[in-house]
Amino acid sequence: MTKERVLTGITTTGTPHLGNYVGAIKPAIEASKHSDIDSFFFLADYHALIKCHDPAQVRQSTKEIAATWLALGLDTDNSTFYRQSDVPEITELSWILTCMTAKGLMNRAHAYKAAAQANIDEGEDADKAITMGLFSYPVLMAADILMFNGKKIPVGKDQIQHVEMARDIAQRFNHHFDDLFVLPEADVGDDVAVLNGLDGRKMSKSYNNTIPLFLTEKKLQKHINKIKTNLLEPGEPKDTEDSTVFQIWQAFANEEQTQYMRDQFANGIAWGQAKKELFALINEEVGPARERYEELMADGDFIEQELQKGGEKAREYASALLKKVRTAVGIAPILK
Amino acid sequence: MTKERVLTGITTTGTPHLGNYVGAIKPAIEASKHSDIDSFFFLADYHALIKCHDPAQVRQSTKEIAATWLALGLDTDNSTFYRQSDVPEITELSWILTCMTAKGLMNRAHAYKAAAQANIDEGEDADKAITMGLFSYPVLMAADILMFNGKKIPVGKDQIQHVEMARDIAQRFNHHFDDLFVLPEADVGDDVAVLNGLDGRKMSKSYNNTIPLFLTEKKLQKHINKIKTNLLEPGEPKDTEDSTVFQIWQAFANEEQTQYMRDQFANGIAWGQAKKELFALINEEVGPARERYEELMADGDFIEQELQKGGEKAREYASALLKKVRTAVGIAPILK
Repeated sequence: MTKERVLTGITTTGTPHLGNYVGAIKPAIEASKHSDIDSFFFLADYHALIKCHDPAQVRQSTKEIAATWLALGLDTDNSTFYRQSDVPEITELSWILTCMTAKGLMNRAHAYKAAAQANIDEGEDADKAITMGLFSYPVLMAADILMFNGKKIPVGKDQIQHVEMARDIAQRFNHHFDDLFVLPEADVGDDVAVLNGLDGRKMSKSYNNTIPLFLTEKKLQKHINKIKTNLLEPGEPKDTEDSTVFQIWQAFANEEQTQYMRDQFANGIAWGQAKKELFALINEEVGPARERYEELMADGDFIEQELQKGGEKAREYASALLKKVRTAVGIAPILK
Repeated sequence: MTKERVLTGITTTGTPHLGNYVGAIKPAIEASKHSDIDSFFFLADYHALIKCHDPAQVRQSTKEIAATWLALGLDTDNSTFYRQSDVPEITELSWILTCMTAKGLMNRAHAYKAAAQANIDEGEDADKAITMGLFSYPVLMAADILMFNGKKIPVGKDQIQHVEMARDIAQRFNHHFDDLFVLPEADVGDDVAVLNGLDGRKMSKSYNNTIPLFLTEKKLQKHINKIKTNLLEPGEPKDTEDSTVFQIWQAFANEEQTQYMRDQFANGIAWGQAKKELFALINEEVGPARERYEELMADGDFIEQELQKGGEKAREYASALLKKVRTAVGIAPILK
């Protein structure tokens, strides 16, 4: 049986937080160990440049994300873990696909339309402060996917359209030139855990409400203490439904532990106590990896080696496919 | 004294014709022999993909153009002659520049605006049949220029805006990150010879009125015979002003020869005779190179070798600069 190729990109602009861990990293690392899945994970640093023009931040985020995945036990032998910018074939393919992409398709991209609408709503020119990076981003994403003939693309709902665009571009290429690209499919897990942040909204860098994954124990407890709760006193029964503390607890707990905390809530556990127990639960899970993370961050060489190894594996595939793509469009050595 | 770097791209979609020869190739090849000019010439095959989705045509045109320049004596030791697609650094830089380019800038590009206006005039959607290749083309052109810090860019009037855009993008990058790019300048020669074609309009592939440069003698005479003339009989004095025959004659003749033909026109030379003499004049100039051209086309290996040589020289420069650019934006090996 051929392995199914699953491709996931991680934009290198932030520090991994508990929401990333529960919703994306943990399941992806599990998948990396399955022998029937061919996982490709990449640090999307070319994408980072669209929004982030701070080189130190791109560098730091790249390092943190790579260290995180490695510390958590990513199986880099059974998967391909690489930095997008180590595969220059991707930008070359991106240009070739650019020539096969209708501008009208990009006009309809949600992310661009939302940005343009926001400008219009403020009485500004629709394209104010919009870069070609934002506008062309779906073409680069198509290249990311098609370069490795990724079949299954785990994405959030906001990214479904981009995978469909990649599919559309691939179809156009296959039809006009050669049948070189597998048509990718968005894989939107229904059961993807979405964690709430400190303020009760979805945990996200853009809301500045995250709990970073690898904090020191002291800082982790401090962050957890900042989770917004209501004013109910110790002894008063608490509702699990609208509680971020309970929601995060649940994401890390097994069934038994979940029932335990449900009972505690009903029995009126003090918020301070609940947060203390939440800290202990999370710390138990991430503690061992934290040590490894600190080691990796302090050294750096191992991360770089692993990325080089992944980059070589990725390029082996990419360069063979790109050669076919180039030949198909008419770019080839001159012959007799 | 530092050599001035002059950069010229040739899109690989057509067969070189007399107009290309007189207006661009001949002066460029002269320049390639000047020791105080650092000439970069490239076959713009990535650009060809924007308009040409016929792989055989791109391949054939690339071969013909390369063979033409080499047959005419391009000094590939004193200049850098390469195929754009042999320098993958260019598409990588192109993506980085894409992230620094305002979409509004591209909206204002003449070529895009003209295509959109033509759609609107026909009552169609403005972006009908417009690809992202056409729309993003000025960014790729900026990468072509900035990748080699080309200072002087010989262009036709229709390309001035694109060089200005490259300048604009370079300024934005230099200002935001590091001062890595030389600001390019368009060089629009006032005295660039523009040749008329068979029908009296400017000789251009798009008008289908060209005389290819390297035809067999028989075919060259046949093409010249097709040049549109008026109905004046032999013996009737003819006007040099509106005569394509005279215009092409002048482009190949020295002063003495020009005066000679002027006299012949006044004396009522028959059109057939004038065309016969025009053939002889052109044939005298291009004949020797034609033989070399045929040899090169029959072999192919030498062309490929020369392009490889040029590609290596180009990449040496490009990869060093790209490394600096990557570092400036935050893409670099992971360190301690």
